[in-house]
Amino acid sequence: MAEANTGDRMEKIVSLCKRRGFIFQSSEIYGGINGFWDYGPLGTELKRNIRDYWWHTMTRQREDVAGLDATIIMHPQIWKASGHVDTFSDPMVDCKTCKGRFRADQTAEIPCPQKPSKMVSACHGEKTAPRAFNLMFQTCVGPVQDDSAIAYLRPETAQAIFAQFKNILETSRQKVPFGIAQVGKAFRNEVTPRNFTFRSREFEQMELEFFIRPDEAVEAIAGHLASAADIGQCQTALGNDQTDWGWEAWHKYWVEERIRFYESIGLPRQTLVEYWQKPEELAHYARATVDILYKFPFSKRDAQGELMGEELEGIAARSDFDLSQHQRSSGKSMTVFDEELKAAWPKLEPAKQAELKERYYQNRLQYLSKTGEAPDKAEKLAREDAEALTKGYYLPHVIEPSAGADRLALALICNAYSEDQAPDEKGKLETRVVLRFHPRIAPIKVAVFPLLKNKPELVKKAREVRDLLRPWMNVFYDEAGAIGRRYRRQDEIGTPFGVTIDFDTLGEKGPELKDTVTLRDRDTMQQERVKISELLPLLLGRIR
Amino acid sequence: MAEANTGDRMEKIVSLCKRRGFIFQSSEIYGGINGFWDYGPLGTELKRNIRDYWWHTMTRQREDVAGLDATIIMHPQIWKASGHVDTFSDPMVDCKTCKGRFRADQTAEIPCPQKPSKMVSACHGEKTAPRAFNLMFQTCVGPVQDDSAIAYLRPETAQAIFAQFKNILETSRQKVPFGIAQVGKAFRNEVTPRNFTFRSREFEQMELEFFIRPDEAVEAIAGHLASAADIGQCQTALGNDQTDWGWEAWHKYWVEERIRFYESIGLPRQTLVEYWQKPEELAHYARATVDILYKFPFSKRDAQGELMGEELEGIAARSDFDLSQHQRSSGKSMTVFDEELKAAWPKLEPAKQAELKERYYQNRLQYLSKTGEAPDKAEKLAREDAEALTKGYYLPHVIEPSAGADRLALALICNAYSEDQAPDEKGKLETRVVLRFHPRIAPIKVAVFPLLKNKPELVKKAREVRDLLRPWMNVFYDEAGAIGRRYRRQDEIGTPFGVTIDFDTLGEKGPELKDTVTLRDRDTMQQERVKISELLPLLLGRIR
Repeated sequence: MAEANTGDRMEKIVSLCKRRGFIFQSSEIYGGINGFWDYGPLGTELKRNIRDYWWHTMTRQREDVAGLDATIIMHPQIWKASGHVDTFSDPMVDCKTCKGRFRADQTAEIPCPQKPSKMVSACHGEKTAPRAFNLMFQTCVGPVQDDSAIAYLRPETAQAIFAQFKNILETSRQKVPFGIAQVGKAFRNEVTPRNFTFRSREFEQMELEFFIRPDEAVEAIAGHLASAADIGQCQTALGNDQTDWGWEAWHKYWVEERIRFYESIGLPRQTLVEYWQKPEELAHYARATVDILYKFPFSKRDAQGELMGEELEGIAARSDFDLSQHQRSSGKSMTVFDEELKAAWPKLEPAKQAELKERYYQNRLQYLSKTGEAPDKAEKLAREDAEALTKGYYLPHVIEPSAGADRLALALICNAYSEDQAPDEKGKLETRVVLRFHPRIAPIKVAVFPLLKNKPELVKKAREVRDLLRPWMNVFYDEAGAIGRRYRRQDEIGTPFGVTIDFDTLGEKGPELKDTVTLRDRDTMQQERVKISELLPLLLGRIR
Repeated sequence: MAEANTGDRMEKIVSLCKRRGFIFQSSEIYGGINGFWDYGPLGTELKRNIRDYWWHTMTRQREDVAGLDATIIMHPQIWKASGHVDTFSDPMVDCKTCKGRFRADQTAEIPCPQKPSKMVSACHGEKTAPRAFNLMFQTCVGPVQDDSAIAYLRPETAQAIFAQFKNILETSRQKVPFGIAQVGKAFRNEVTPRNFTFRSREFEQMELEFFIRPDEAVEAIAGHLASAADIGQCQTALGNDQTDWGWEAWHKYWVEERIRFYESIGLPRQTLVEYWQKPEELAHYARATVDILYKFPFSKRDAQGELMGEELEGIAARSDFDLSQHQRSSGKSMTVFDEELKAAWPKLEPAKQAELKERYYQNRLQYLSKTGEAPDKAEKLAREDAEALTKGYYLPHVIEPSAGADRLALALICNAYSEDQAPDEKGKLETRVVLRFHPRIAPIKVAVFPLLKNKPELVKKAREVRDLLRPWMNVFYDEAGAIGRRYRRQDEIGTPFGVTIDFDTLGEKGPELKDTVTLRDRDTMQQERVKISELLPLLLGRIR
């Protein structure tokens, strides 16, 4: 981020992505299709590593998260319940002169197609009033293509998690608090895709919905809610007692957990921004949302010239809004029964019971009022919900860490890109391009080189080393060209380790070096001598 | 497959899938959506294992395959070039009486909606003549929703591989023969989704396009083509010399390789059928296609009462049809330059040169004639192609092993499902349901149990063992209920190993058993005593 000209930096990154097979324009031979990007061989491995490490961390390594893999096309009613059919839209204006269509909030930034020296907001074309343009892609399912067949490509993976909440709760032996994780494609018909892969129309999400007790249930069970000071100790979290954690504690925990995740794959803390949405920015159902931003080269700068960052992930405390909506819309109960709550309730002081019941009632009433329910009906339903609470039943609240895999891939590439000076074959300094990927997410973990291609003993030994490592990690084998050039090719794609088989390996310089290889570190370019028999455990230790 | 009533068997499997969280109906709380299925926590892990093992075997473990991860929505011209816009359709009839729409070739199997005792073909409703119904889902991309914005959800992942062939060739340091692999969702608006997840509208493919030299180039370089006898030795394939392999050898190799893959994840050879399509069944561009079928419980039976099987994978020799089509349609060259061919050609006898050139000319002419090119233009272009061959240029041919991940998941579940008799807590025999998954693809590799929940020392030790194993494999920890019932729960979801921490582990029966655990085998129900320090390498060896 030291460069003054971040535009140049971005251009170099985009060019490298194409040249080395990280990212191609989709359908390039047909002129491309705006907002769609394909991952080439190295990009595919990078994204696989991102997905896998997210899944490993968020699901397999945890006791309290179950996975889901739902379809992209779902029942259209899901998107009515979620609010997407009615409100997932951008305001658009049409220009009656040039027939162009523009996002109403961007007309001051977009040049007029007919007179590019002027912005759309200042050109002479006659514009329509802004109209809502829904961002969901539509299609028709089934043989009859009428209105009843309309379905949508999911604009987020989250809703499937809510829709399958009860099925998973009933089959997975989980109890609240627990989470459901999903990785998959989502689609938004963005009016203006831009910033390379950052804002595209087809992208991949990694979402967790973490279901928790409503605060009133926590208080009934634990006797109190964790204080702000307790929240400050979330670091050690899992395994510890979380009985007194309300939504604020869980939200704080997930913000910290997710930042640790980004740090663990090589994004330094100072490249990230923890942005707490202001009250006026929050969605009406959200109690708090933290965006984790990464300072991309194309990010805008603040008054001090600092990059402000763009969203990698949002961590929202969404209350019980989503489950409430699907319960209303489907007529299927989304409430859970909590034995501990049922057992705890009768032991509370009557005054405490009344207070918790009233608070829960007010929360439910607030939700129901927003849905347009008639006041007396809303009051009646909220009373029923509050009564159910006293018997151990409630709608779980949810904390949603929602991350974009493509944005993360781009952030990792931008962060990894660097140039330094290194000697060429003749010892002359030249510019070296290096992707300083964390070994955990590097597309290729190790490159194996015979020093010379035309020495069968070297080639044979090098292939043995390749075959030794390959079952355990992604290996690139390369025998073509000068060794220095082969190192550079690997530096440029971020391979953290290089193993060279030379004449020492064959024992030609004495028995003490026989069956040792040179292990080169991408970042320091330092070389160490390692026994082949120790290579695999050594590398496994460094790439995990 | 021993059961007489395979319908019963299938019902039990479907019921288990729902009950234990393998597969749910998509959008179930809204009444479902026909042809769409979600994977619950265990199904998600099963499918991940399938995808990952395919990717590992087909890409990461091989020198000669590169990966791709392309978008689902691509430029619509791709589907014109591939033939899908014009010909990817089923014939449909409409019934003017009941307004139903039916596949014309299935009217004898589908009951009339108004009079279910009769089939559609025999009911009184007046039918239209059959009309083509395209199976691609349509959508519109961009803010203006007119015909120029129409795009399709990919009905197969293969075409992106052809469209990006040159980009990958140029950036990946691969040379023909080499392959490009992709895993991803595909969509077909099937008129009649059926057989559980087998024929659904949204599904996941695992496709390899393996690009090879045309036979004429192979013959020019190697002097001959591998004979049928040579083809019989494909088993050892990789690493060996394949210079003389033409399309028949490569096709044979991939058929055998793919069958080995299915065997390696637990589908016995006798459950599979290697079906060679008859000449009249082949697509016009295909030289040979082998379908690998699995004998599902819902498969039809032949005259001898044997299950005939349903397609898991097709392995097609597609000639140079696809690259030719995209070259024609995009105007971008798809030819490759082959140094070895260029070097070999001048060394051939003139008569051999003429023969190879003529054969290549005839092949290209045959292709061009089918595209509707005028005869003189076709001849001219084919001559140019044949001339280019002599300089080292050609369009690669392709072998396509194309597998369905959902079908494979279903086959693995069906194959794994079994019932036997095992003693209950009191020694009385009861029916035990076991999913006999191969450990490689089992959703959970090992379950860890403290013998008793209310002994803190047991629970503490069991959690230590869980935490020892979890970084390396998917572990399920369960402390609730009698140990026998916990075993049964794991048997039913196919967990191959169970580890129990008991009082011996704590050293209560003497120091020689201290820090040992019981390791139980799902299939044999045999138990062995294993040191905790030896548990991880032992399990790693058994699950890989």
